[in-house]
Amino acid sequence: MSLQRLFVDVHTHIYLPRYAALLRSRTNAPRIFSRTGPSGATEDRLVILDNEPSDGRPVGPQYWDRDEKLKFMDRHGIDISFVSTANPWLDFLPFADAQTLASELNAELESYCSTSPPLASGSHSLKRLYGIGLLPLVPNAPTSELPAAVHALAKAHSHVRGVIIGTRGAGNGLDDPALEGLWAALAETGLVVFLHPHYGVDGSAWGPLDNGHVLPLALGFPFETTTAITRLILAGILDRHPRLRILLAHAGGVLPQLSSRLASCIVHDPRVASRLQHDARWYLDRLYFDAVAYGSAELSFVSGAAREGSRRMLFGTDHPFFPPLGAEEKWRSVVENLEAIEGVGAWRDEERDGVRGGNALRLFGLA
Amino acid sequence: MSLQRLFVDVHTHIYLPRYAALLRSRTNAPRIFSRTGPSGATEDRLVILDNEPSDGRPVGPQYWDRDEKLKFMDRHGIDISFVSTANPWLDFLPFADAQTLASELNAELESYCSTSPPLASGSHSLKRLYGIGLLPLVPNAPTSELPAAVHALAKAHSHVRGVIIGTRGAGNGLDDPALEGLWAALAETGLVVFLHPHYGVDGSAWGPLDNGHVLPLALGFPFETTTAITRLILAGILDRHPRLRILLAHAGGVLPQLSSRLASCIVHDPRVASRLQHDARWYLDRLYFDAVAYGSAELSFVSGAAREGSRRMLFGTDHPFFPPLGAEEKWRSVVENLEAIEGVGAWRDEERDGVRGGNALRLFGLA
Repeated sequence: MSLQRLFVDVHTHIYLPRYAALLRSRTNAPRIFSRTGPSGATEDRLVILDNEPSDGRPVGPQYWDRDEKLKFMDRHGIDISFVSTANPWLDFLPFADAQTLASELNAELESYCSTSPPLASGSHSLKRLYGIGLLPLVPNAPTSELPAAVHALAKAHSHVRGVIIGTRGAGNGLDDPALEGLWAALAETGLVVFLHPHYGVDGSAWGPLDNGHVLPLALGFPFETTTAITRLILAGILDRHPRLRILLAHAGGVLPQLSSRLASCIVHDPRVASRLQHDARWYLDRLYFDAVAYGSAELSFVSGAAREGSRRMLFGTDHPFFPPLGAEEKWRSVVENLEAIEGVGAWRDEERDGVRGGNALRLFGLA
Repeated sequence: MSLQRLFVDVHTHIYLPRYAALLRSRTNAPRIFSRTGPSGATEDRLVILDNEPSDGRPVGPQYWDRDEKLKFMDRHGIDISFVSTANPWLDFLPFADAQTLASELNAELESYCSTSPPLASGSHSLKRLYGIGLLPLVPNAPTSELPAAVHALAKAHSHVRGVIIGTRGAGNGLDDPALEGLWAALAETGLVVFLHPHYGVDGSAWGPLDNGHVLPLALGFPFETTTAITRLILAGILDRHPRLRILLAHAGGVLPQLSSRLASCIVHDPRVASRLQHDARWYLDRLYFDAVAYGSAELSFVSGAAREGSRRMLFGTDHPFFPPLGAEEKWRSVVENLEAIEGVGAWRDEERDGVRGGNALRLFGLA
């Protein structure tokens, strides 16, 4: 099969066994615990968010067993996955622990990927699995040590081709001036930065009614991502590091729908406007967006917001989150994201192929 | 001129003199104070948000002088404006004060509109100004008294054809079960509900860097509106009150870009899904959106997200906010919103006319 027709998932998560063991050792979120389920059998539960109901959600081998990941890929026709640790990464650890664990987990991720099966067909020598690694980017991290961590990761691990980061940086957000060296190192190495939410917004926004996980996941996550990337733009980080490649989770949150409003607000605040080299909408042409939006209209809009926007969108599943409720063979969350790509009328066939896989291979330097 | 070609502004604010006097009497936000400006002249300043820089922003006769509103309309070719009190309305008052002031301000708004000039041309008997009134919907309001306030407003004031409300309701948000009677009364009277943000999200999201008003206005406002309307949807209020007509400020915040994600999150939370009669996207067909988005791509997307979406979009200016920085004859904020409407390639001429005015006249019962 031609590289251009491969089917590649850039948004798919794991908890490596070492990480899962850490979560099992904890008594508050994030944690994994076992309980006796309704059927009498023992079941594992994951509590990931601070404000989550205390019984959390189901967790299992899909998170840590590589065979399960490969089975999921086979079932949905996914050729290659770029796996990343799920939130909240190492955010809850002191720097020294985070530094050690990041190194260990990156080495394990390299092995997880490098020993994965080769792609069955074609003359290329690609594997089924590649990785997006971790940095010890945690509260109170000595930021001067971060560039070395970036370079070490890039140098040691050929199958780990990016880093996944949250939005809090070393505690003051990603626009913290102390992170300038981190951005420089990331731009220099060419590692893809996968920016992913975890904290949402202050939970009081959701009110007293019980809406389960809907509001923090459907709204809080994209609000958080949007705020983080907007702060990066306003701090001039995209201006100063033109080679930085940032992939935004969940189709960029809502930056596309707010980009003209953002541009107008900046124009009306000359002190802010004077700091930036470009109109706010220009920065959309510098970013990458996963295609995890569950609807064609949203994909079409996001893709149209950036120049050559379809080349900036990349298929993702968010596996193993949003599992099927019943015994369906294919996951609804995956099918919806695939159908959304299929349904974008404005895309030519090559563009659709790009979103399904070709764009990912280019972004991560495999094609 | 045909009614269908009139140019109508549905998002334009005032502080009636009585309200401005209240703001002048206060020592914390919201407040108006006078200071000696850089030129040595006395100038009025408005501090409207809790976290705003203490010197606030300029405020002046544009906010309270009707002639200034009419001059602004003439300068931009606006035939009719539906004026509403700017945020934060009466939110900061005890109920008894809010109740008295709402009555007084609604009566003054009726007079402000009913004594405004007639439209120059045509056989119709329309005025230049109509109003969107206030309710005493404030923290700890006795919610059983709200339906009577709605009916009184609708009965007494023929030029006041809607109400503007924030997102906090009686203190627990708009999805508070205690507000059921309020929604029923609003649906019954046919008053348009203009849902407008004020509080944004918790200010800690914006971080320590000084980005002026950009983050709370560009992001916080639409996040707040989106959260409020989503909570209304999840509480079943649009299901139970099909005749309720809600106009969302700033093009609906970001509900359109998140509607498929919202639908997916609901499907994966069966307790929430079982409460709703429709897929989350269906509710877009029940809402109205102002066209205050500053970009054609955004308008086109929002309009495409709902069935007959162009009939659900209505031109607005957000006057007197976002004033020109220099001595421009026309306000950039207005010109951008007009050009955005002009630039939506998918709209036929009648649709464009509808967005510029016809839709507003239909929604507010004037055509």
